[in-house]
Amino acid sequence: MPKKLSINPREFDLIQTIRAQGEVTKADLVKNTPFSRSKINGCIHGLLKKGYIQEIGPGEYTGGRRSKTFSLNGDFGLVAGVDIGATSIDLVISDTASLPLARGSESSNVREGPRVILGRVVELISRMLVEKGLSPELLYGIGVGVPGPVDFSQGKLVSPPIMPGWDSFPIIQTLQDCFPTAQVVVDNDVNVMALGEVSQGIGKGIRNLIFVKIGTGIGAGIVSNGAIYRGTNGCAGDIGHICVKKDGPVCPCGNIGCLEAMAAGPAIGERGIQAALDGKSAVLMKYYQAAEGKLRAEDVGDAAREGDPIAIEIIRESGQMIGDVLAGLVNFFNPGMIVIGGGVSAIGNLLLSSIRQAVLKRSLPLSTRDLQIVFSAIGPDAGVTGAVNLALDKMFEGELTGTHS
Amino acid sequence: MPKKLSINPREFDLIQTIRAQGEVTKADLVKNTPFSRSKINGCIHGLLKKGYIQEIGPGEYTGGRRSKTFSLNGDFGLVAGVDIGATSIDLVISDTASLPLARGSESSNVREGPRVILGRVVELISRMLVEKGLSPELLYGIGVGVPGPVDFSQGKLVSPPIMPGWDSFPIIQTLQDCFPTAQVVVDNDVNVMALGEVSQGIGKGIRNLIFVKIGTGIGAGIVSNGAIYRGTNGCAGDIGHICVKKDGPVCPCGNIGCLEAMAAGPAIGERGIQAALDGKSAVLMKYYQAAEGKLRAEDVGDAAREGDPIAIEIIRESGQMIGDVLAGLVNFFNPGMIVIGGGVSAIGNLLLSSIRQAVLKRSLPLSTRDLQIVFSAIGPDAGVTGAVNLALDKMFEGELTGTHS
Repeated sequence: MPKKLSINPREFDLIQTIRAQGEVTKADLVKNTPFSRSKINGCIHGLLKKGYIQEIGPGEYTGGRRSKTFSLNGDFGLVAGVDIGATSIDLVISDTASLPLARGSESSNVREGPRVILGRVVELISRMLVEKGLSPELLYGIGVGVPGPVDFSQGKLVSPPIMPGWDSFPIIQTLQDCFPTAQVVVDNDVNVMALGEVSQGIGKGIRNLIFVKIGTGIGAGIVSNGAIYRGTNGCAGDIGHICVKKDGPVCPCGNIGCLEAMAAGPAIGERGIQAALDGKSAVLMKYYQAAEGKLRAEDVGDAAREGDPIAIEIIRESGQMIGDVLAGLVNFFNPGMIVIGGGVSAIGNLLLSSIRQAVLKRSLPLSTRDLQIVFSAIGPDAGVTGAVNLALDKMFEGELTGTHS
Repeated sequence: MPKKLSINPREFDLIQTIRAQGEVTKADLVKNTPFSRSKINGCIHGLLKKGYIQEIGPGEYTGGRRSKTFSLNGDFGLVAGVDIGATSIDLVISDTASLPLARGSESSNVREGPRVILGRVVELISRMLVEKGLSPELLYGIGVGVPGPVDFSQGKLVSPPIMPGWDSFPIIQTLQDCFPTAQVVVDNDVNVMALGEVSQGIGKGIRNLIFVKIGTGIGAGIVSNGAIYRGTNGCAGDIGHICVKKDGPVCPCGNIGCLEAMAAGPAIGERGIQAALDGKSAVLMKYYQAAEGKLRAEDVGDAAREGDPIAIEIIRESGQMIGDVLAGLVNFFNPGMIVIGGGVSAIGNLLLSSIRQAVLKRSLPLSTRDLQIVFSAIGPDAGVTGAVNLALDKMFEGELTGTHS
């Protein structure tokens, strides 16, 4: 049976405040929660006794009596964050104050199926624990991001297009059999990355955020009022199949002119190849030949950085199409920040500025007044960071104690 | 000073459950809240004593001891819901169990400015109270919907395009000066209508919903996880200016091919006039002449119902453009329901089926699996119903008692 924290709703609220702020004084808690000082004293006493938080000395002197400062107690236990990509597995083992203690990463192929990949995950977590001299029984949670649509309540993939064998596979059960003390949570990779950005990335503290992953496909993770928004069937954020061109190419989804088919990595690469073969760009031809008849979006990005006008135009068009779609979503959702991540974001500022321009041109002034459109600052770490926080979220939910006192 | 309920967080949770379900037994509360039976007993005792709820006899017999049944106590007090439209004021005075006690409605012109319109609102509320023999001191809240962008935290309009004199006008202050016991809440009309649909309309119980108002303009109210979602600057849902045609007409907002400029009431009317003048439709010409050189969207709808192929085509095109935009939003937001309201929805099923077709064609299968696209069932009452519930929401928030017990 997984270990669960015993935590009541008021303690939960305090823990969430402490998690958001890192370190807090009692004065902060009085200010930022609806509870009286005496109730807060009681809660802090209980949380210290249970070992969930620790006292870390007096806060900064601001006149008057110094207020005691508290933070999460990292020594309390461990969680693991697992980011399963199409071609890689990334892992972090972190303490319960979200300090990373061990990292692992290796290439893999998600098409090998859940038994192979999850077996590898179990092996890697176990080896990392042994290497750091940590007991697997200290594991309170494992957060897992997977590159496909997830039924979050079940923790299972739903007809994932690139993951044969994973449909409805019991991921939670499989990992829990090997790490019985841990609660396991599974979510879509883009949701997990969005969570990484708002918990420890550039979006920290932003209440409403859209994380856009641009890679082989295009997808979004949505944060609404500070929490991952998954929608009615758990498939919110599937922006890759919004139409951008009514007479565009047919997408594998069966529709015409989908954003993903027009502007994601493969489309950028293909347009680059076409320009090379048409003799329009010697620079693109150089990259094309160097890669022996292949061209990645990143190569087109490199050609653009060399000043090749055709490559620049291809990147600009792609950024504009993505920006046009985001402009509509900005009008609808009025987010405080859009974070751009995923492999294709390596192309850099030309892509970002094209996206920005399109959004600013087409969105209403009020909805862009405070809007930031930025690259992820944690980049490839967004996935594992989010997965760690997914596990911590689950852990600190605790066992519902059924009372408010 | 406005009267505020004294209510603690646990009581608040119980009240919200009772509001959502109408009547509940203790057994329901034990099942649907995280609280123990003894805590629930304590809360119910307190809520009965304060008069916020009432006992209405034993529940249905299901074997075993009959469980007592509780509902809100309508005799406790009153709230008013006010729906200020561009050309009308609608009002409802309701008891605190949301039973309407008096209704009022009259034409007006919002351009006459806030002093005239709010003065009229005060007069109408006062007269309705007198006619029903109700004391103004029983008013706990007034909810107000206005046809423009609102800074919700301030309760003020922000540069409303069709409302000269209303920019930043202190609506809350003005109404509170006349009804000092009432807390006043002001929101955008479309948000208020969305609230009406999820609290007492066709969307009752739906957690994620988009309400689309199609009239002179096109706007959306968003319900996310059961609550109105307003976005970072309070302007979420502004879907009327999403681009549907890159070489479309210039919209008053300055952009090109906005949904509103292409598919709202005036665009439908203008296309009808054009078809009539071009001699393409004798039926449309008939309506055009009958209205002395005018044509409303509803007239084009009537012509379509008579079987006029040109009118049918105009409505279909409009529905398809609206549906194309909604398809993208369905992929992004994955709502459980889209409710279509506003004056142009009177056109009826041809419009609705065109919208549905476009959404089903362009959205992903998983996101439309459980999606309902329906007309508002409370129609023109969505505004006042939502305004009453806005006031009740504020009232039952109560005064933060600062404790959980």
